[in-house]
Amino acid sequence: MSELRQDRTSGAWVLVAPGRGRRPHQEGPPAAAPERRPAFDPACPFCPGNEHLLPAIIDEAPAGHAPGWLTRVVPNKYPALRPEGGPAQAAGRDGAVMAGYGHHEVIIETARHDADLATLADADMVAVIRACRDRCLALMAEPAICSVLVFRNHGPRGGASLAHPHSQVIATAMTPPKLAAARAWAHADPTRRGRCPICEEIARELASAVRVVEATARFIVLVPFAAAAPFEQWILPREHLASLAGHDESALAELAGLLQRTLARLGTALDDPPYNYAIEPGSAEADDASCAHWRLRIVPRLVAPGGFELGSGLPINPSCPEEDAEALRAATASPDAR
Amino acid sequence: MSELRQDRTSGAWVLVAPGRGRRPHQEGPPAAAPERRPAFDPACPFCPGNEHLLPAIIDEAPAGHAPGWLTRVVPNKYPALRPEGGPAQAAGRDGAVMAGYGHHEVIIETARHDADLATLADADMVAVIRACRDRCLALMAEPAICSVLVFRNHGPRGGASLAHPHSQVIATAMTPPKLAAARAWAHADPTRRGRCPICEEIARELASAVRVVEATARFIVLVPFAAAAPFEQWILPREHLASLAGHDESALAELAGLLQRTLARLGTALDDPPYNYAIEPGSAEADDASCAHWRLRIVPRLVAPGGFELGSGLPINPSCPEEDAEALRAATASPDAR
Repeated sequence: MSELRQDRTSGAWVLVAPGRGRRPHQEGPPAAAPERRPAFDPACPFCPGNEHLLPAIIDEAPAGHAPGWLTRVVPNKYPALRPEGGPAQAAGRDGAVMAGYGHHEVIIETARHDADLATLADADMVAVIRACRDRCLALMAEPAICSVLVFRNHGPRGGASLAHPHSQVIATAMTPPKLAAARAWAHADPTRRGRCPICEEIARELASAVRVVEATARFIVLVPFAAAAPFEQWILPREHLASLAGHDESALAELAGLLQRTLARLGTALDDPPYNYAIEPGSAEADDASCAHWRLRIVPRLVAPGGFELGSGLPINPSCPEEDAEALRAATASPDAR
Repeated sequence: MSELRQDRTSGAWVLVAPGRGRRPHQEGPPAAAPERRPAFDPACPFCPGNEHLLPAIIDEAPAGHAPGWLTRVVPNKYPALRPEGGPAQAAGRDGAVMAGYGHHEVIIETARHDADLATLADADMVAVIRACRDRCLALMAEPAICSVLVFRNHGPRGGASLAHPHSQVIATAMTPPKLAAARAWAHADPTRRGRCPICEEIARELASAVRVVEATARFIVLVPFAAAAPFEQWILPREHLASLAGHDESALAELAGLLQRTLARLGTALDDPPYNYAIEPGSAEADDASCAHWRLRIVPRLVAPGGFELGSGLPINPSCPEEDAEALRAATASPDAR
């Protein structure tokens, strides 16, 4: 039996319809070709020695343009937004229009073309999380910027156009629609009185435990109550923090390990699925402290949204969040066991 | 240069970034296998003679369970919603929850397993549109139902699980989020005074003509100003009508031909892409007459949304709506020419 569930952190509704997942598929999605990547690809702009293929290097760790770098930050060569002109609204011409002002960068997560985030050495994974944190800090320092989103596309069906491990960063001069909607929803209820919906959700989820996949001292991984897609997961900081940039080194190391285990469980349970994740900032507005709680949202791309989702805006999740959480808890977090 | 555009019929923003479409793809999406379907498939529940594989037959045209039927309406065997229990909200248990009350049906569009909507004979295509209209009428008659959405998924990457030509109908006891958002947006501007955003958009688009693909006496096909995906198109009735059910027979015939030409142009321009379309109702609420204008929205599935869209809710369209409209106008609407 299906049911409509409302996400208590955003107000968004989803249709959870587990029976749909069991229908036969005459037309199955084509199987992904097994991927075999070399450690170095002479045509890859992210591989060491191919720096002439990069527009520039914005940042590097360790600093100094020496061999043996762990992470690099470079401009996206085909940016969705550019730091040119200004963020001013240019309405009038043809309706409501704003210039595509902002930043679009790439975080090269490792020098090795064939590496996998889930199996990076501990220190290398911490460097990846630190690079995400540093870009949030650097880009939020610009007054025109009001949101910095770090995201990762894994696999061609996840939208990745280059195979070398990388994340992307997009900084915008507008509040993203999802954040604006969550904010409006948190403020719509006058009985809320400044309580954070994500803090409340964490307390509820820890109490019931059915959707919790793993909890550490500072973080929790769960399948959300109103998951919009099969095996959606959130990593949430237990502390009420608006941004990844608010964490100290020891929390970043804890997060790095937790993210690796989360990706490893996903890979084990679903045989290395394509996925997207996004590190969503909380609101940067001063009057919004009550809903300023960042989250990392991971969604494997297992189902194609169809015409119903297109027309209604109501996602159909053909999987049961509680069963997904159980399957993930049972999956080994050791990637070597795959 | 990219820009942010706001859809003047819903308030939704998109990022139009044409340069992104030209980036190289190391990891291309796997090529779809060429599809060769027989005229009859003994395992297909929608083929004539396989009625024992169907849960029931709700409606048929012409009526009478005789051979030579044009269209059939059957229950979806794996329904996302069921007309059981009641539509009452069941909040409390674990947050905001509603029963999955509603109807989920399939419109079998033709008896031929290998048919293509774009090449159906004129009378057969009119029968398809008439079946859509009739289901809207029948399901809207139930007091608990407040929205009836007809939609079509074409190709495995469009979410189709069965190859036999069919559409689906989902009737819900809740207002779909997209409709609720458009309604809130239309009512948010006090200067609007009951004017319909879609009527206004049609007037603007006909005046500028750059995004119009085809206009007939009663309908217009355009690439929307704030298209969320490459080659998105809307078919809009020029008359302010809340539902397909408001049209007479002669308008339905005009719409049938127009939809066929629209699908044929899409097939010619993009080599039979996977696509989704949805016939979105206007609002059924009495106080909403001003924003009650139905539309048919078609989106070919050419790009996979990634982590940015997941985290921000802001779609990136790597194509230019004005150029898409030009390419579609140049594409032949005669499917035989393919």
